[in-house]
Amino acid sequence: MLFVDLYELTMMQAYFIYGYNETAVFDFYIRKRKGISRNFFVFAGLEYLLEFISNLKFSESDLEYLDSLKIFKKEFLDYLKDFRFEGDIYSVEEGRIVFPDEPLVEVVADLTQAQFLETALINLVQFSTLVATKSARCFAVAGGRILVDFGARRAHSFQSAEAAARASFITGFAGTSLVYAGKKYGIPVYGTMAHSYVMIFDDEKEAFEKFSRMYPGTILLVDTYSTEKGIKNAISVLKKLREEGINIKGIRIDSGDVVKLSKYAREIFKKEGLEDLIIFLSGAINEYKIKEIIDSNGEVDGFGVGSELTVSADMPYLDCAYKLVEYGGKPKMKLSEGKKTIPSRKSLIRLYKNSMMITDVITPFGYEEEAIRNKDMIRYDQSELILKKVCSKGKILDDICLKDKKQYILTCRDRFLKDFSYLPDEFKNIYHSREYPVIFSSSIRKITEDLEANLRME
Amino acid sequence: MLFVDLYELTMMQAYFIYGYNETAVFDFYIRKRKGISRNFFVFAGLEYLLEFISNLKFSESDLEYLDSLKIFKKEFLDYLKDFRFEGDIYSVEEGRIVFPDEPLVEVVADLTQAQFLETALINLVQFSTLVATKSARCFAVAGGRILVDFGARRAHSFQSAEAAARASFITGFAGTSLVYAGKKYGIPVYGTMAHSYVMIFDDEKEAFEKFSRMYPGTILLVDTYSTEKGIKNAISVLKKLREEGINIKGIRIDSGDVVKLSKYAREIFKKEGLEDLIIFLSGAINEYKIKEIIDSNGEVDGFGVGSELTVSADMPYLDCAYKLVEYGGKPKMKLSEGKKTIPSRKSLIRLYKNSMMITDVITPFGYEEEAIRNKDMIRYDQSELILKKVCSKGKILDDICLKDKKQYILTCRDRFLKDFSYLPDEFKNIYHSREYPVIFSSSIRKITEDLEANLRME
Repeated sequence: MLFVDLYELTMMQAYFIYGYNETAVFDFYIRKRKGISRNFFVFAGLEYLLEFISNLKFSESDLEYLDSLKIFKKEFLDYLKDFRFEGDIYSVEEGRIVFPDEPLVEVVADLTQAQFLETALINLVQFSTLVATKSARCFAVAGGRILVDFGARRAHSFQSAEAAARASFITGFAGTSLVYAGKKYGIPVYGTMAHSYVMIFDDEKEAFEKFSRMYPGTILLVDTYSTEKGIKNAISVLKKLREEGINIKGIRIDSGDVVKLSKYAREIFKKEGLEDLIIFLSGAINEYKIKEIIDSNGEVDGFGVGSELTVSADMPYLDCAYKLVEYGGKPKMKLSEGKKTIPSRKSLIRLYKNSMMITDVITPFGYEEEAIRNKDMIRYDQSELILKKVCSKGKILDDICLKDKKQYILTCRDRFLKDFSYLPDEFKNIYHSREYPVIFSSSIRKITEDLEANLRME
Repeated sequence: MLFVDLYELTMMQAYFIYGYNETAVFDFYIRKRKGISRNFFVFAGLEYLLEFISNLKFSESDLEYLDSLKIFKKEFLDYLKDFRFEGDIYSVEEGRIVFPDEPLVEVVADLTQAQFLETALINLVQFSTLVATKSARCFAVAGGRILVDFGARRAHSFQSAEAAARASFITGFAGTSLVYAGKKYGIPVYGTMAHSYVMIFDDEKEAFEKFSRMYPGTILLVDTYSTEKGIKNAISVLKKLREEGINIKGIRIDSGDVVKLSKYAREIFKKEGLEDLIIFLSGAINEYKIKEIIDSNGEVDGFGVGSELTVSADMPYLDCAYKLVEYGGKPKMKLSEGKKTIPSRKSLIRLYKNSMMITDVITPFGYEEEAIRNKDMIRYDQSELILKKVCSKGKILDDICLKDKKQYILTCRDRFLKDFSYLPDEFKNIYHSREYPVIFSSSIRKITEDLEANLRME
């Protein structure tokens, strides 16, 4: 498996040859970023990481390629032959709401093994978390309306299309257009028709009628030529077919002034006694557009959310990192300007009051009691450790995510919906930045200050 | 293969059952988009598309899944059993410079087959084109400095990391950090060291020395603690090792005020008689930053370009489409507001004068002579058909991209470098929007006007 940056392999060889093989701890976390509004993140992608770790192995041809680079010694390549991940992994569960600075995945392993994971781990976890966060923002403003992922075509690859369908389903989307994701994860698949379908026929009504006969309960795309005419054609076909007992569920509008057009459609539907028809909107939809359309009293029952979701267009990557925080039992940190790290192996504790999240506390691993003792300072009635052991000595502890993916993502979805209900409303605002309280415990602050002072002295 | 949106399959069944099986023509093109500066695009990703088409097949379990949806008839599922792509594909070659509105891929096939490709084709071609365009913009401003793709970790998947390494190499990057891309495509792999490496050692100098002994000619990362001290430590190790005949090539700075720090480093290097050391910069680099650093007289020999490249951060998706333009020999168009299409099967002709590109002309297929005859209107001395047949009746015509990927991408790279030299400088500006002349021939304008008038009358 060569999904690795060259420098990880060269560093690994240096560790191996020079004998640096003590236990290392690396943290994956999201950096604080100014100016871009994400009041919360939704952690996702752990399944991909655990799958990667389970299948980790260098093939013969991988080793031949590495040998051809003429920088790796025979003894190191021999070591890679049987290379497996044999360490521990602590992780937040998929679907949980998280915040910047928090350790989301913590790898505790032999230095070479922990170093190897860097590029793959970031890649597998950052994108799912990115999209789950974006889709959760859509969910936050949709007011219960149906949301469907339409993004497969504009995703950056087949794999990212799948990951986006999966991540958005976890955060409350009703389904996806991507058939492959339906097959693999049991996510409900949705689809209407494309403009090309309507264009094949000489007459729009004929196109609508034939499709509705084949797919009773379908949704008709009405904006191929004139949306107003399209709506009238849909109604005329609907009346004819309802007489025969064939139903049509509603219409989709994909262009133009969708607020105005949706109101126009609803008005006609009402006049015609067709209150049960649904109006579905698509075309450059994102959380801002959803909110705008709803706030302008657009008559809408559901949204197809495509490109803007699938690439998280206003924030197409997370500023996130995978950093060494401990080696051989000693805390480690870097001081690089603007990219300073927080040393020490960690625990992450969430405090609740009246069933609402109030504060997260980051402590050194083993110092969890400190947060609990702080009861006087922060008034809470419940606490929870949210960084959990998911892999022990290379063995996945609960491998439902590998064995029953359909069941697993339903669990993740429930987890998100629960967390979302515990999150105070002020953090669900998509426009205003609100910093959720994430506190570093006094012991972790002390470790950091002492180490920094030491490093600056040298 | 279920990388397809549900509506494509439902439309296909409708075409199949109702007997709409004449030849259809679909165009893939980039839409004009206001406000975002991309004066040219670089077409890429054809290899992925041709590979997809060559392997196209529904598995038993695919068909079982479709059957479970209870909307597909047995005769249609039987038809899918032997479903293959048997049509023709015309495409621009990878590495060519292209512009909005131009047909970049044109599929001429049975309606069901052409419709099936929609989602996969857009997915496979849009991302490679997106990144190749972004990397070409970096290339345009780097003034010959080394550019290396560092983006794998922030790519939206393993596949997109590979595609980004490949696309950026085509547009003049020196290489990538991603080992997998090196193995598959023969792209040179680059790497230095991470901060974690330096942090493992108690002493920065020891870290540098051990690494340099193992990898003579390496580049040292100097900003883990204090960049100024890091530079001095690098020099001290370098002097010691050069006495032993071991070379160090240069340094990398990843944080802070890189312009200031690079000048500081160069000054010391000069004082010490180390003019041959190179300075490599990384950290949130994109084309704007490259230009800024160079314009501020930053002392830089190369850039590691990561997240900003690999997701094309300022434009994370192309507004592109795959639209029906002809069916059964008749031109087809949609009139949707803001998304009107241009009907008819097409040819794309590029006109040159004095070895510079001057105008592209879009004509109906078979009407290429029209553009040539126009010689009086546009003064050109050379013309070229740039939409070429790449697949005939399902057979890939030149399958070097499947059989010798390493050779193939070198060809694509040459093609880009040539096209780039033919592109007038004014279009290489990364700040100012300049619209390259793309002309619709009079016949295609007439076809469009007539059809639109007809459709509006109905």
